[in-house]
Amino acid sequence: MGTLQGNAVVAQSGGPTAVINASACGVIEEALKQAGVIRSIFGANNGILGIVQEDLFDVGIEDRDTIAMLRCTPSSAIGSCRYKLGDPAKDPEKYQRLLDVFAAHDIRYFFYIGGNDSMDTADKVNQLAKQQGYELRVMGVAKTIDNDLVATDHCPGFGSVAKFLATCVMEAGRDTEAMYTFDPVTITEAMGRNTGWIAASTGMARRSPDEAPNLIYIPEIPFSEERFLEDVREVHRRLGRVFVVVSEGVKNEKGQYVAAQAEVDSFGHRQLGGVADYLRQLVTRETGLKARYNKLDTCQRNGIHFASKTDSDEAYECGRHAVLQALAGVTGKMVSLRRTSDDPYACETGLSNLSEVANGVKYLPREFMDVAGTHISEAMRTYVRPLLRGEVPIRVGADGLPTFLRFQRKPVARKLPPFVGKK
Amino acid sequence: MGTLQGNAVVAQSGGPTAVINASACGVIEEALKQAGVIRSIFGANNGILGIVQEDLFDVGIEDRDTIAMLRCTPSSAIGSCRYKLGDPAKDPEKYQRLLDVFAAHDIRYFFYIGGNDSMDTADKVNQLAKQQGYELRVMGVAKTIDNDLVATDHCPGFGSVAKFLATCVMEAGRDTEAMYTFDPVTITEAMGRNTGWIAASTGMARRSPDEAPNLIYIPEIPFSEERFLEDVREVHRRLGRVFVVVSEGVKNEKGQYVAAQAEVDSFGHRQLGGVADYLRQLVTRETGLKARYNKLDTCQRNGIHFASKTDSDEAYECGRHAVLQALAGVTGKMVSLRRTSDDPYACETGLSNLSEVANGVKYLPREFMDVAGTHISEAMRTYVRPLLRGEVPIRVGADGLPTFLRFQRKPVARKLPPFVGKK
Repeated sequence: MGTLQGNAVVAQSGGPTAVINASACGVIEEALKQAGVIRSIFGANNGILGIVQEDLFDVGIEDRDTIAMLRCTPSSAIGSCRYKLGDPAKDPEKYQRLLDVFAAHDIRYFFYIGGNDSMDTADKVNQLAKQQGYELRVMGVAKTIDNDLVATDHCPGFGSVAKFLATCVMEAGRDTEAMYTFDPVTITEAMGRNTGWIAASTGMARRSPDEAPNLIYIPEIPFSEERFLEDVREVHRRLGRVFVVVSEGVKNEKGQYVAAQAEVDSFGHRQLGGVADYLRQLVTRETGLKARYNKLDTCQRNGIHFASKTDSDEAYECGRHAVLQALAGVTGKMVSLRRTSDDPYACETGLSNLSEVANGVKYLPREFMDVAGTHISEAMRTYVRPLLRGEVPIRVGADGLPTFLRFQRKPVARKLPPFVGKK
Repeated sequence: MGTLQGNAVVAQSGGPTAVINASACGVIEEALKQAGVIRSIFGANNGILGIVQEDLFDVGIEDRDTIAMLRCTPSSAIGSCRYKLGDPAKDPEKYQRLLDVFAAHDIRYFFYIGGNDSMDTADKVNQLAKQQGYELRVMGVAKTIDNDLVATDHCPGFGSVAKFLATCVMEAGRDTEAMYTFDPVTITEAMGRNTGWIAASTGMARRSPDEAPNLIYIPEIPFSEERFLEDVREVHRRLGRVFVVVSEGVKNEKGQYVAAQAEVDSFGHRQLGGVADYLRQLVTRETGLKARYNKLDTCQRNGIHFASKTDSDEAYECGRHAVLQALAGVTGKMVSLRRTSDDPYACETGLSNLSEVANGVKYLPREFMDVAGTHISEAMRTYVRPLLRGEVPIRVGADGLPTFLRFQRKPVARKLPPFVGKK
């Protein structure tokens, strides 16, 4: 496998994170260094949708400072989406369309920053290109706040949401400590559809026994309303206050989501909301204790103003290595993270097969929780501690608020007719 | 009025803020400097409740570094409450109890950091002491995230909640920009029972026309569901996405709270929650647009990790000046802030009568909003801009999370029988 000259496209997919742009920065800065091989680098507006719709922009015209600012800009600056490509056997037009767009623009490098659905898409595109003899190098870059990808020690995006949400729990926990005579119960909802990594990570906020959070509930451990109410009553008897963190995806013994309002998104995933509000009402009804709730929702995954530098630096390295590996001839792989030591923390990039990552889910190990299953164990602390370290340096304007980048988004001229395949 | 020797008590009341401890720090550090006059300084556990219950602790035994850390610790480190003292004519026991506790501990200085209900209590205690010939100096220190106190340019606590929430709106706004093809509408709920200062301040996040927030709704402007839905539809037609900030206290044309779930707290105030969730459901039902909501609730008022240094420094100065003024013989006043220039920003401390502050409410002037009443005007920008500047330096532990103080809380020996007046 020799030098493959051509253009590159970088796309971001799924829910944004505080550091998904750091990965894009790693891809773009490294690609720009390789200008003899990678002629142009394009961004795909709105993730994979931008490729299907041939809606690309030229990243190369942006000045270097704008590109550097990707590291201090949250969310997906290139654009994202939730757009599920179906089974290639049943829905071949979309995959063919991706290859048609790549061929029309001589795109030979596809860098896809996303979670397991995205790795599935990338894997299928890679296979189709091979079948058709179109020389293409497809590299995935791990991204998800949920931390639920297999074949990687942890996922870029997780450390930052964990640091920010744990900090908010520390702060709001002090509020409950101060106001317990009036507001004794606070319930904070954490993201996490299927796994409890984010909710559990807020356990780091508790440095001494009676601090917030007092109780943590995760999807991996079946949720019993009766036991929850007993837990709340017990902590309240002991401390006069209760601070709970609950994962949006907690399920009862029958595997049903506790959150009442459950809608289904286009991936067939349930979009959850309202479990904290539901439990707040349950607590007040059943125990008579006044309760309130915090639901940071999309604020939690974009908190660049207090993001983890460790996380951001790793996200950048994953992007950079995707380019280096692709140039070396690798395709069909995701750049993953391999931890070599907890203390002092050391971690290096590795490669995993896209197909392995595609449909696996890494659940929180039971031993990362305590015996009761309502707080974290020392094993979880050892795992998560290094991922929260350091703060991402941000830029602050004269108005005291952060300054983020805006791309010029110079469109790449279309060469194909609009896509008319089924939606 | 000469030198009045004796002890001092400092208390914090009502909802915590990110900088209420900075005011306590100003009081305590200045009081400790005046050790020849102020012999001991006590903290009241859980605000005014701690005085009624004679539940005091000795702040003087804390080391100087612990006291300095008040400036980087959110919420009310001394303890707070919502505990309404009624009309002295109808409920004289409680006021008498306060004076009894003061007399039992030779307390001659009472520093009360709080909002208008607290200033009302302080005013009444001050009058009663005068009537009974008990020499006491009562100083209020303005505190409220709501920024609704009269007789002060702005309130310590407001700048920090405004900076943090506006930042979260910027960040979550980028999320909506990236994900609009899937999640087109985001509604963020801001605190503010009666006034729109906090919700309106998030307008600072919009530096260019199409950025978040697109629409802001405040209690001062009657809320029409029909007009709201029209606004949402119009922005969505134009941009394909809508980011809304709504104050928890928005009311319809009849003056009724839009939030369905309204409970009444012990001050007779309504405890609101759920307006964002309510509007999210309304949007989806009436427009078919998918909508989600963020409700930071107690997280917003405790965000020391990205608090305003301007706000924190002013909070400290207000506390310090309360002590200096009391020592100079002043009583029955609240330390207020007087702005002398917008640009360059200059502000000094002043004094307002407690009775004036006690029951007034400063609403957001109509001219601080635009003509449509759904975003801020240049006048609001000029007002709020300087209040967000600078970041409070915090301490971060080896685990990447902030470090806050804990008082030892050495109890002051009780000298009176327990209070048995009506609750």
